[in-house]
Amino acid sequence: MKDRKLLMIPGPIEFTPEVLRAMGMATTSHVAPNFTEAFGQALERLREVFLAPSGQPFVVAGSGTLAMDMVAANLIEPGDAALVVNVGTFGDRFGEILERYGAEVDHVGAPGIGDVPAVEEVELALKDPPTNSGQGYKLMTITQVDTSTGVRSDVRALAELGREHGALVVVDGVCSVAGEELRQEAWGVDIALTASQKAIGVPPGLALLVAGPRAMGAFRERKSPVVNYYADWTKWLPIMEAYEARQPGYFGTPPVNLIWALNVSLGQILEEGMDARFLRHRRMSEAIKAAVTALGMTQVPLSEDKAATTLTAPYFPDGVDRSVLGHIQDEGVILAGGLHPEIKARYFRIGHMGVVDDSDVRATVGAIESGLRKAGYDVAPGAGLAAAQAVLDGEIPRLRSG
Amino acid sequence: MKDRKLLMIPGPIEFTPEVLRAMGMATTSHVAPNFTEAFGQALERLREVFLAPSGQPFVVAGSGTLAMDMVAANLIEPGDAALVVNVGTFGDRFGEILERYGAEVDHVGAPGIGDVPAVEEVELALKDPPTNSGQGYKLMTITQVDTSTGVRSDVRALAELGREHGALVVVDGVCSVAGEELRQEAWGVDIALTASQKAIGVPPGLALLVAGPRAMGAFRERKSPVVNYYADWTKWLPIMEAYEARQPGYFGTPPVNLIWALNVSLGQILEEGMDARFLRHRRMSEAIKAAVTALGMTQVPLSEDKAATTLTAPYFPDGVDRSVLGHIQDEGVILAGGLHPEIKARYFRIGHMGVVDDSDVRATVGAIESGLRKAGYDVAPGAGLAAAQAVLDGEIPRLRSG
Repeated sequence: MKDRKLLMIPGPIEFTPEVLRAMGMATTSHVAPNFTEAFGQALERLREVFLAPSGQPFVVAGSGTLAMDMVAANLIEPGDAALVVNVGTFGDRFGEILERYGAEVDHVGAPGIGDVPAVEEVELALKDPPTNSGQGYKLMTITQVDTSTGVRSDVRALAELGREHGALVVVDGVCSVAGEELRQEAWGVDIALTASQKAIGVPPGLALLVAGPRAMGAFRERKSPVVNYYADWTKWLPIMEAYEARQPGYFGTPPVNLIWALNVSLGQILEEGMDARFLRHRRMSEAIKAAVTALGMTQVPLSEDKAATTLTAPYFPDGVDRSVLGHIQDEGVILAGGLHPEIKARYFRIGHMGVVDDSDVRATVGAIESGLRKAGYDVAPGAGLAAAQAVLDGEIPRLRSG
Repeated sequence: MKDRKLLMIPGPIEFTPEVLRAMGMATTSHVAPNFTEAFGQALERLREVFLAPSGQPFVVAGSGTLAMDMVAANLIEPGDAALVVNVGTFGDRFGEILERYGAEVDHVGAPGIGDVPAVEEVELALKDPPTNSGQGYKLMTITQVDTSTGVRSDVRALAELGREHGALVVVDGVCSVAGEELRQEAWGVDIALTASQKAIGVPPGLALLVAGPRAMGAFRERKSPVVNYYADWTKWLPIMEAYEARQPGYFGTPPVNLIWALNVSLGQILEEGMDARFLRHRRMSEAIKAAVTALGMTQVPLSEDKAATTLTAPYFPDGVDRSVLGHIQDEGVILAGGLHPEIKARYFRIGHMGVVDDSDVRATVGAIESGLRKAGYDVAPGAGLAAAQAVLDGEIPRLRSG
């Protein structure tokens, strides 16, 4: 018996053996040539993975929350207005963070859980910023995929709107970057951020973001100093520039092993290719969602076009509760419980990011089937797997945009 | 030939194979029982390593700079007065961080590089806080070991003074905790902080601190909210309490592999025992310092009682410059260059923290001897090694206090 279960949660995800080996390498000095080269290359590769050739990457020891905090700390000055396109828990969090630094924050919420705000609602909001700000929204945030619900926003359409109204467009891509289709520069996104343990494929411990020229310009035009010391780009920018020029720099000691692992994972991601990677995530997602439907479960996102391809959030069927996750774990697959406070006990979450392959999909769907049966839910053996197979054996889907 | 050189710099240091194996383990969920147990145990062990049985430990993804930032962000409110006992670069930095959050900061500096301020000077300063603060210094910071110069402050004496004058005593122990003797609770230190890659023996990526009851009390009595979101103890305290109660919590995803590695290293540290560990660091330090003297080099710290036991900072001998570090590296040992801006080109640094043993000391001293000879400096073969051997074969030193 393997003592290792398949980790199918929305982060941390399964990491490749090469990434884990980099984590366990004997640490070298943060000024050693082999580390300087790896850090420089990782910064270059981040631009390619974010599809942001003109962007400035930042790699800092921390979590995804630090990446969000960096955005607010460096771009918000007291009195600035910010608009949060809110599809769940992480929209609430971004609003709270922006307020910390003195922003006047408005939220455009969805009509209900599992839904996204209509584009027209966002447009109306953008046209009506707080009057005392004296100008429009300085910044607008979009959670591309809300990890708590699996709801996906239409970043391309919203970013276009935001730019039309002069707002910096910030995408919380924690549960999307390197999995869900995101074309930072082509879509006019000024900042995209994520954390290492999601589709980027590196154990937790790194905050990652890429800031485009408009965002860096807004940062340079600040009138007041950045309050948050550790998040201050004034300190980090010279370090990122130094390492990219293959010169060591020092502000805080960089997390050497995590950055080695990052560089390995980014290399693997680019070897697959971004389009192929987005498509693979779509395919895995469609297979799992087809299985979930075949097993008689509905999902938190109200429709397919509002659902992420990086995770699936099914409601438990009638008569089944959270305890089914224990049965599924006994079958070898770890899934996550609910997170959104209002519906927490009624649904669960399946992460399918990173190196997930057809075998993982089959193992996951099979474990869900068997787990449901053990929980007393009547399901025909193979019903979910048959639905997944139909997708896996079917035509390769096409990207929505290129 | 081994392709691996001995890393004798003041962090990152050499890590044990067990720690590196924990780094490379397949990451599990941050709510998995085996991770929850490891995190909880690491928190308990931190209290033992810091010798702070009543303290509240914080373990957060970041660097030592984040640990400093956490102190300032959580304890300083605009207008508070803070006193920095400044022995080098990291005193300057602590002052800058405290000012970010609105503190009125005074520095008590040393009469010169390599020196520490006289205890009487610190007492005079404590008696004369800024008049507009309306009260004494809220907080006083001491860099136990300044990584830039190898100068060590007398924490016990200064902490006693600070407490007498009602100041919270904060020790920057980045280059000292788990190597240099530090007895947080017995010495009346309210907060001690460090980073993982120093004597704690874990690859870089963790900010670590233990806050005593007076510090937590001052935090709870804040009148204004903490501005820095990521550093906010309001968010982290429930997480630390949850994990210690062996319940998972979520604010930011904890860096699973680094925390596993931390727990392994703390276990190894406690197995050695804190007193034995402090003594071993003293012994290694004395051996290296004796060798440095025998080789005709002076040190940045002006006297033995002002010198750290975690690193040694020798001035280059006449006619030798930084290029000797390349020769020493060719001999198999990586040392660090100078860091203090005023004397940067004139000295170098030897780190000897963590699992350093007699063999490492001999290898290091021998490489320095050979490197100096290659740089054209006349040194009798074995002169440094003989001096080191005399210490290594000599009597075990005693701790200054128990």
